[in-house]
Amino acid sequence: MKHIEANESNNDIRDESSYSRREILKMAALAGTGIVVGMSGMASLLAINNGQKVNPDPKESQSEIGNKDVIPFYGVRQAGIGTPQQMYMCFAAFDIISDNVEELKQLLKIWTYISADMTAGRALRETNGQQQVNSTPEKSTDSPAKLTITFGFGSTLFTKNGIDRFGLGTQCPDELRNIPSIPGETINSQISGGDVCIQACSSDPTVAFHVIRNLAAASIEMAVIRWIQTGFIDASDGQTPRNLFGFKDGTANIELTSEQAKENHVWVDSSNGPAWMINGTYLVARKIRMDIEKWEQTFFRKQETIFGRSKSSGASLGKNDEFDAVSMREIPSDSHVWLARSTGTKILRRSYSYFEGIDPVTGNLNAGLFFISFQQSVRKQLVPMLSLLAKHDALNPFISTISSSVFACPPGSSEGGFIGEQLFEVK
Amino acid sequence: MKHIEANESNNDIRDESSYSRREILKMAALAGTGIVVGMSGMASLLAINNGQKVNPDPKESQSEIGNKDVIPFYGVRQAGIGTPQQMYMCFAAFDIISDNVEELKQLLKIWTYISADMTAGRALRETNGQQQVNSTPEKSTDSPAKLTITFGFGSTLFTKNGIDRFGLGTQCPDELRNIPSIPGETINSQISGGDVCIQACSSDPTVAFHVIRNLAAASIEMAVIRWIQTGFIDASDGQTPRNLFGFKDGTANIELTSEQAKENHVWVDSSNGPAWMINGTYLVARKIRMDIEKWEQTFFRKQETIFGRSKSSGASLGKNDEFDAVSMREIPSDSHVWLARSTGTKILRRSYSYFEGIDPVTGNLNAGLFFISFQQSVRKQLVPMLSLLAKHDALNPFISTISSSVFACPPGSSEGGFIGEQLFEVK
Repeated sequence: MKHIEANESNNDIRDESSYSRREILKMAALAGTGIVVGMSGMASLLAINNGQKVNPDPKESQSEIGNKDVIPFYGVRQAGIGTPQQMYMCFAAFDIISDNVEELKQLLKIWTYISADMTAGRALRETNGQQQVNSTPEKSTDSPAKLTITFGFGSTLFTKNGIDRFGLGTQCPDELRNIPSIPGETINSQISGGDVCIQACSSDPTVAFHVIRNLAAASIEMAVIRWIQTGFIDASDGQTPRNLFGFKDGTANIELTSEQAKENHVWVDSSNGPAWMINGTYLVARKIRMDIEKWEQTFFRKQETIFGRSKSSGASLGKNDEFDAVSMREIPSDSHVWLARSTGTKILRRSYSYFEGIDPVTGNLNAGLFFISFQQSVRKQLVPMLSLLAKHDALNPFISTISSSVFACPPGSSEGGFIGEQLFEVK
Repeated sequence: MKHIEANESNNDIRDESSYSRREILKMAALAGTGIVVGMSGMASLLAINNGQKVNPDPKESQSEIGNKDVIPFYGVRQAGIGTPQQMYMCFAAFDIISDNVEELKQLLKIWTYISADMTAGRALRETNGQQQVNSTPEKSTDSPAKLTITFGFGSTLFTKNGIDRFGLGTQCPDELRNIPSIPGETINSQISGGDVCIQACSSDPTVAFHVIRNLAAASIEMAVIRWIQTGFIDASDGQTPRNLFGFKDGTANIELTSEQAKENHVWVDSSNGPAWMINGTYLVARKIRMDIEKWEQTFFRKQETIFGRSKSSGASLGKNDEFDAVSMREIPSDSHVWLARSTGTKILRRSYSYFEGIDPVTGNLNAGLFFISFQQSVRKQLVPMLSLLAKHDALNPFISTISSSVFACPPGSSEGGFIGEQLFEVK
């Protein structure tokens, strides 16, 4: 086993940055018997390529971490979609700068192994900084704080500027195209799209930060961050979270709680997707700026007719309980709920609020909703809803959509495999 | 009692925005028998001016809210200073645009009453939006999620551009002046200073957002937000939180846990402040950008010698436990801990991490520490520490200070009084 070592003396510290990530990746690919490098999280993940997982600190087995805070990373389907929504999100879109399909696969493997480590509570919070192999410090066993990490592929991973960059072009799902332009929206392309998206959710904002930081650090010379969005929901303890207009957002999700409902509306199966996407789903993310000041100038009762729901209980107007069946006749036909339901399609909402200080131009609060939905088909389920809302929604004067992205979330992976591997098997 | 009413019919909603806040404030000042206006949170708080608190919904008494989630707003000293640090912070600096001292007092009263309401769990989360008096909706009893709201006054509240704007100039504490320029720092004045600061801390980020939103809404035509900073700490459950370099930050606070230590180092008394500041303290806030990428290129052991502490345990080098007494001989004399301790002064740290996506210019993570400290004397306790650190701190190549503000936090208030009232009594 080859070690890249360094002198531990405080007076003579060799800077390991002279070994680039690319070199290490090359070494990992070339090494016959495994390689351990002195880099946070890399030791075990590269060793696993040779069929043997090296855990640098056996004390950190997952069993020592409270199971209630662990959501398994490996599985038939990715976590962070059908699993309960955590309080804090960090969502990053990366552009792949490599043009080599083997390097892309290697990056996905690295990201997979790091993600599995982090969701199990390893390589979190305090472990940034390079580590000498012979001085692996004792790490505290961190709670992963219900961390989930969810990956998705954008259309530009398949074809960019007309070029089939990785030879994957024919595998691009029909669904994976941008949502048609919706009237009234102004999309900023700098905060939209991207080759790969990673959604990190946790009950601890520091964990979500470190996840994106660790994944970005591991991708140096392979990928660059295109945009990042952080978000939060209220500490609702299982209740439907409220958006920044004060209304419960995601009540209809109750209709998608059963596994059967998710089979029908969320997960791709052989009837509606390419083979590599079976047990995957499509993610749509839209940043919706909300005019908080204008909303505050609006009567409470008018707000309720705009949404079509009671602000306090979340019940649709004319009903008492949030989860009572909606009576379409009792709510205004330009209300948000009426329009969202009138298409008859269902989507799984998993949105987060954002708050980014004040707008330097207007002085108003720069806040809103980072809308995230998962569905079997963007075009059949979400687009009809968005088109109808764009035309008639009484909420439109108070909101503006400033980003829009679609990603194909592949199925989950199992230990030893990697996220998206089915895409390459097909090929 | 005069009511400003509105038709409740959905088809005939009168827009109340024709009543400006200024008019309402005037009406409140003029009304002899009390006034109830249909505005979020205003009904009770203006009625209180006439010696009688009108609670629009008696069901919402504080006793119904779990006491563990309530930190009392009223008290001899303000909360959010010596009270345990919550996970999430929203910090706003306001500039007062009024030039009338009575209006300033009125604004402070409004802010006080709203703050007391919110910390007790009222007017939180779902209650934004104007309310008709006769249709006050049933509000759910919200947990305030350990909310604290802390006020401070900047030097510009006393004298701005050489003008004693409110006749308070002679009351300005000597301490309330900017920290002398520290070598190497680049201060952005647009995110520094301000006439009044409000620090809202909570275990729920949505609560912290709504607090600032509600306070901003209540100040329309009286004050404008100058800057806002949000921040978070890890879910450390009573342990010292880690900063984004992965190190525990605030270990020395243990030395300030006793009430006597706070008397000695945090709270102003008659020997060291103007009379109106007794039981108050001085707040320094400095936004410190951290070069995460450069830090990651640095060896783990070198990081530890830079801080002078074990990364895992937080113990000073040569010791085993985070709270073992620091042995100055065992840690490098250019380490952060050595320098911070060598002045012999103590400050109460209550900092928050921030993460604001990627820097559009460099593509690096835009992240760091929003350093907050409280102390009896900025010049005697903090400035010597900062000056020494600026000269020798091994951490300097990894950080840059981009904002700096000093505020005088007055003592707490009691029900019926208001934050800062002692300042006006002196006059």
